[in-house]
Amino acid sequence: LNDHSEVKRTTGTAELPVTPADIKAAAQRLKGKAVVTPLLSFPLIDKEIGFRLLVKAETLQLTGSFKFRGACNKLMLLREQRPDVRSVVAFSSGNHAQGVAAAAAMLGFSATIVMPDDAPRVKIENTKRLGATVVLYQRHSESREEIAAKISAETNAALVPPYDDPAIMAGQGTAGLEINTQLESMGIEPDVVIAPCSGGGLVAGVATAVKDRWPKVEAMSAEPADFDDLARSLKSGERLINEPGKTSICDALLSPQPGVLTFAVNRELLARGLAVDDATILKTMRFALLKLKMTIEPGGSAALACALQYRANWKNRTVVVVASGGNADAEMINRALEAGDILETAS
Amino acid sequence: LNDHSEVKRTTGTAELPVTPADIKAAAQRLKGKAVVTPLLSFPLIDKEIGFRLLVKAETLQLTGSFKFRGACNKLMLLREQRPDVRSVVAFSSGNHAQGVAAAAAMLGFSATIVMPDDAPRVKIENTKRLGATVVLYQRHSESREEIAAKISAETNAALVPPYDDPAIMAGQGTAGLEINTQLESMGIEPDVVIAPCSGGGLVAGVATAVKDRWPKVEAMSAEPADFDDLARSLKSGERLINEPGKTSICDALLSPQPGVLTFAVNRELLARGLAVDDATILKTMRFALLKLKMTIEPGGSAALACALQYRANWKNRTVVVVASGGNADAEMINRALEAGDILETAS
Repeated sequence: LNDHSEVKRTTGTAELPVTPADIKAAAQRLKGKAVVTPLLSFPLIDKEIGFRLLVKAETLQLTGSFKFRGACNKLMLLREQRPDVRSVVAFSSGNHAQGVAAAAAMLGFSATIVMPDDAPRVKIENTKRLGATVVLYQRHSESREEIAAKISAETNAALVPPYDDPAIMAGQGTAGLEINTQLESMGIEPDVVIAPCSGGGLVAGVATAVKDRWPKVEAMSAEPADFDDLARSLKSGERLINEPGKTSICDALLSPQPGVLTFAVNRELLARGLAVDDATILKTMRFALLKLKMTIEPGGSAALACALQYRANWKNRTVVVVASGGNADAEMINRALEAGDILETAS
Repeated sequence: LNDHSEVKRTTGTAELPVTPADIKAAAQRLKGKAVVTPLLSFPLIDKEIGFRLLVKAETLQLTGSFKFRGACNKLMLLREQRPDVRSVVAFSSGNHAQGVAAAAAMLGFSATIVMPDDAPRVKIENTKRLGATVVLYQRHSESREEIAAKISAETNAALVPPYDDPAIMAGQGTAGLEINTQLESMGIEPDVVIAPCSGGGLVAGVATAVKDRWPKVEAMSAEPADFDDLARSLKSGERLINEPGKTSICDALLSPQPGVLTFAVNRELLARGLAVDDATILKTMRFALLKLKMTIEPGGSAALACALQYRANWKNRTVVVVASGGNADAEMINRALEAGDILETAS
């Protein structure tokens, strides 16, 4: 079930591993299942920041992040293509775990999620509450891949990969399709679209959908400063790996390297990769809580943080950012509230 | 400019001081000026709470509360009816101040807001930033009514009342009209609609709009426990006054008595008045921050708090709550995060 075999090397968008048609098909599958999240505008705040900000609130998606979209699309395709498979397995300590668990429960699959035994108790509890079986492993002495492969073999369970999969990318891209419809109904044309990036599935899907409708839009990824593998890979043309041993509060954005399939899309479609440090992320979370009235988790804030940090670049233009997740706990919100004002940062 | 003279004593809804037609006219005036705020659904949370919850996010309205709607409608009517008047005055320490200031700036009026000198600095600064002149007074030794009357006389400024005015009620009611459209597009019929209540303008307007479309819906007000003047007045049939000397963290909901005009509407349209204590408000704010990913201020949380507190009453039914404002500061958010889990409270 590993779709890496399907990689299509290409120099034109027609043959990329995810297409606008795939995303439209995914949107049909997700209809009535995923939440159509709002695209929020803040006209008075626009005057303060000097550009028109629109926020796609995936914080309001089922399970609090966009991850449900890809998981649900993947599982619905699986149901069509492999009706013998009734169980799925995934490894994740965070939002992908909850997305897979919720999609599995909704579609009648049993789900096993392999999580590190030092994962936050609240994420383990949330995943269990969604009906999944959680298998804990020791991060430093056991291999989650081996455990998942064993579960997959023993139970005929399909592995649901977090990003490097056409169905996952197409599912995440439905957020971009909604952005298109919402912009049209507002009568607004976008200049820049920014999405947070870990393995790159969200930004690949969103860029595919949005650039199909608005070819001139500049699509950009947002990463933590020490996990800017995509930004550097876009410059070099190679899938570069992050220097090991670094940390970031953006627990959802710590993938070490761009995916094979996601990079095939992103190197064609993205204008550039952006990155911000953790201090800017915390200030951005504070700005979201106090000004946008939104809880956004650290990784989910990365695109908004880049939009605010580099605001001199898009004066009077229209910037759409994806707020990709809202699963911050009380402690992280407290840390953010102690941070400074992002608008007092030189831009 | 005091509209109390226009009070129409009535026993039928046709002659109430605000009508569905007034609200539809207000919606036309506000088009392209106020934000159409989303009606948010949380299907996975519905399973936990046992009823279908829909949240009208007025936290995302311009200036962070519904107050902009009424102020904007009032000022647009003023511009039509009294073109000689180019300045307005209001007294408020909070959301009404910001709503009037923003509407005045947008429509080219100069605005003076009379605020107590012990008002939170952030609210004074926000009001100034919106372009208003702030006149501070000493809460214990000066009369804000006298100061506002003096300003009004000296500058030919119109007083913008906070709630007891047909144009204000009609403006607030546009939130209800949006709820109708949004429910229709979701294919959902509501059973209960709850809105926070101070002077009663919001709940009067929302009840007028929603009951016009769905006559069987039960409309309810939500007040702080020691400021439940409307709940008690609805039972007694008289406009009762709150016992003085009480306090609540719901700074936006401290009016001492129902308005004359708002009570004329509310006693006809509301099924009952609900109330909750401050501890429940804090738990509800925590629930909103962590589960709904929303910052809601204490008073703005009252309807959601009542919906959760009394959830045994609407098992498997559909409850629309208005989250009327989101202007909480970091300190209040911190207090909320230290509160307990509202769902562990016996219902």
